[in-house]
Amino acid sequence: MTDHSPAALLSAVRAARPLVQNITNTVVTNFTANVLLALGASPAMVDAAEEAADFVRISGALVVNIGTLNARTVASMKLAAEAANEAGVPWVLDPVGAGATAYRTQTALDLLALRPAVVRGNAGEIMALAGAQDRSQKGVDSAAGTDAALDAAQYLASTFGCVVAVTGETDRVIGPSGVTAISGGHARIQLVTGTGCATTALVGAFLAVARPEAAAIAALTTMKRATEIAMRGDPGPGTLAVQLLDALHAVQPADLPAGASQTA
Amino acid sequence: MTDHSPAALLSAVRAARPLVQNITNTVVTNFTANVLLALGASPAMVDAAEEAADFVRISGALVVNIGTLNARTVASMKLAAEAANEAGVPWVLDPVGAGATAYRTQTALDLLALRPAVVRGNAGEIMALAGAQDRSQKGVDSAAGTDAALDAAQYLASTFGCVVAVTGETDRVIGPSGVTAISGGHARIQLVTGTGCATTALVGAFLAVARPEAAAIAALTTMKRATEIAMRGDPGPGTLAVQLLDALHAVQPADLPAGASQTA
Amino acid sequence: MTDHSPAALLSAVRAARPLVQNITNTVVTNFTANVLLALGASPAMVDAAEEAADFVRISGALVVNIGTLNARTVASMKLAAEAANEAGVPWVLDPVGAGATAYRTQTALDLLALRPAVVRGNAGEIMALAGAQDRSQKGVDSAAGTDAALDAAQYLASTFGCVVAVTGETDRVIGPSGVTAISGGHARIQLVTGTGCATTALVGAFLAVARPEAAAIAALTTMKRATEIAMRGDPGPGTLAVQLLDALHAVQPADLPAGASQTA
Repeated sequence: MTDHSPAALLSAVRAARPLVQNITNTVVTNFTANVLLALGASPAMVDAAEEAADFVRISGALVVNIGTLNARTVASMKLAAEAANEAGVPWVLDPVGAGATAYRTQTALDLLALRPAVVRGNAGEIMALAGAQDRSQKGVDSAAGTDAALDAAQYLASTFGCVVAVTGETDRVIGPSGVTAISGGHARIQLVTGTGCATTALVGAFLAVARPEAAAIAALTTMKRATEIAMRGDPGPGTLAVQLLDALHAVQPADLPAGASQTA
Repeated sequence: MTDHSPAALLSAVRAARPLVQNITNTVVTNFTANVLLALGASPAMVDAAEEAADFVRISGALVVNIGTLNARTVASMKLAAEAANEAGVPWVLDPVGAGATAYRTQTALDLLALRPAVVRGNAGEIMALAGAQDRSQKGVDSAAGTDAALDAAQYLASTFGCVVAVTGETDRVIGPSGVTAISGGHARIQLVTGTGCATTALVGAFLAVARPEAAAIAALTTMKRATEIAMRGDPGPGTLAVQLLDALHAVQPADLPAGASQTA
Repeated sequence: MTDHSPAALLSAVRAARPLVQNITNTVVTNFTANVLLALGASPAMVDAAEEAADFVRISGALVVNIGTLNARTVASMKLAAEAANEAGVPWVLDPVGAGATAYRTQTALDLLALRPAVVRGNAGEIMALAGAQDRSQKGVDSAAGTDAALDAAQYLASTFGCVVAVTGETDRVIGPSGVTAISGGHARIQLVTGTGCATTALVGAFLAVARPEAAAIAALTTMKRATEIAMRGDPGPGTLAVQLLDALHAVQPADLPAGASQTA
């Protein structure tokens, strides 16, 4: 494929209907599966150590999300990530709550060391990971510039050789092309639990059909646009979650930027 | 009860409000509970080995679903199935994803060997189980006829002495009466995660008030009809899931076939 | 704060946006998180023994719910409760299904012995706990009066030094001020799974900004009022769940009693 625009990649996902394996948290398993189905992908939630690696090998991409990590699932995450690497299956990491506890931060760093294609987090998570990695490395300078989250993201991207997606009011994707900014969406989406996790799952779906940077840009662009569609009628948070699923199904390539992504 | 029609059994479920225990997957726990409540049953989700068997003994039926199986929950499934058999509580098996990994296929076969009253799966799962069982038995002939899924279902039904329900565009129930076909529903329901699992849970609710074959037919008929009701207004997938719950509550016996089931 | 009315406390929760940690059941993790977000709190679902205690220390309150308890999560519940007590973080217990199995009843009593600020259950659960505790203590007289659930609640409140909230058609809160009755709501809410658990989570949110008795009263009052708002249009159970989230976001302090709570 020569056209890596979000519009072209949305068409590609819907044509391929890729199988996307998720080892994710118990808050969002249902919502994530519905998000992937609505987009046009084929979700699976397989987290047992006995089969996670086997399942990765038949999947188009893997999503690893530490939101409700525990010893059993962390072991499965690592097995699955290693199997993905061996099989050439791209994977995306969502370091939910990194920084909140030592266990969470360390697990996220352990997973980053296994080299995901993309890491997707909010500014706080990305800064916590960069700070913790920086301290663990001693001497690496990550002096905060005018935009600490961007600095942190660039530090992680260069340290771990991955694309970093930082989502917020304006999303930023740090990849080989530099920094791509994606605006749009609506702040009320924060009242629906798991929309960050859902964005990560969308990255997984696009990873099955595109390179990491283009996949991240397409996923974030699709989520921003679907959120805008879902906000029609000024819904409360319950209705917004329902309409977001409807919108992920209804959104068309023509609703997304067809050309090159906007670079900040 | 002499009338085993879906209409009569729907009335019976609502009159009895049976307690239905579920050991199911983390994707659909919430949706399954809401499906059973909407229908008129009383759901419980109890999966700890310390109490699963105790809970079965006070339940009207048991639902075992391997969607997100792991060593802990597989042990509970087996304990619960054995307790159900001892107590005369009917149970239904949903072999989610059988065929996708060896762990999943083997666990499903181990559970089938514990003799569920009903197994409910899609064509791929049923064919995978029949194929794996066939290989394990060596020499059993399951040569595919013009309808491989039906052959597989009949093979499982005769091997394990259970009713087999194969759901798809047209559902088929293989039982003592032969093959019963159930049409209706709508393909878009596949965009809502867990509707197959929900169908299995409905089988559980009907098992509490009817024999396995009639229970399976009633459950599949109810789901097909509720899906049609839920499709009013041509909803997107998020709205469809909500409307399916509304429809399972709104559907009346008069909306279902009152007489003998249609036999293919 | 000198005004402990539900109206004042709802404003206080929305101003504080307290972090509320939940160790809860797999049926309601998503719904509980969305309930807390809709109200205006900040939910977290952290149940690993490796981090549950750490997370409690940065939280405004802790919610412990035994709905799908198992050995792993019960250990985390106890660690988290002990950490909460040490850190002065108030916590609320939801003894889901106490009485249904010995494991469930004993776990609830073990947790009660760790002294939650509030226990919230239905009449059956509260009576089961009082009866089991009574038997374990031998000689304590809890002769049922005209209202067995109220007797049981008062017995638990005095035995464990906690506020007891018994929810039902009319809710009752037993605390230092005596018995407070809260009416309203709608019976159809029982067709939505997890609304009892959601009420307990609301108690957690209010505990972060108020003393236990006032917190329980405010939470139950808010849930009753939101349920009434959510019933507009006579929704089916699927739509009702969605509208309940909308209503928890839309409900305003002016919709709640501004003065002293009604005492039965």
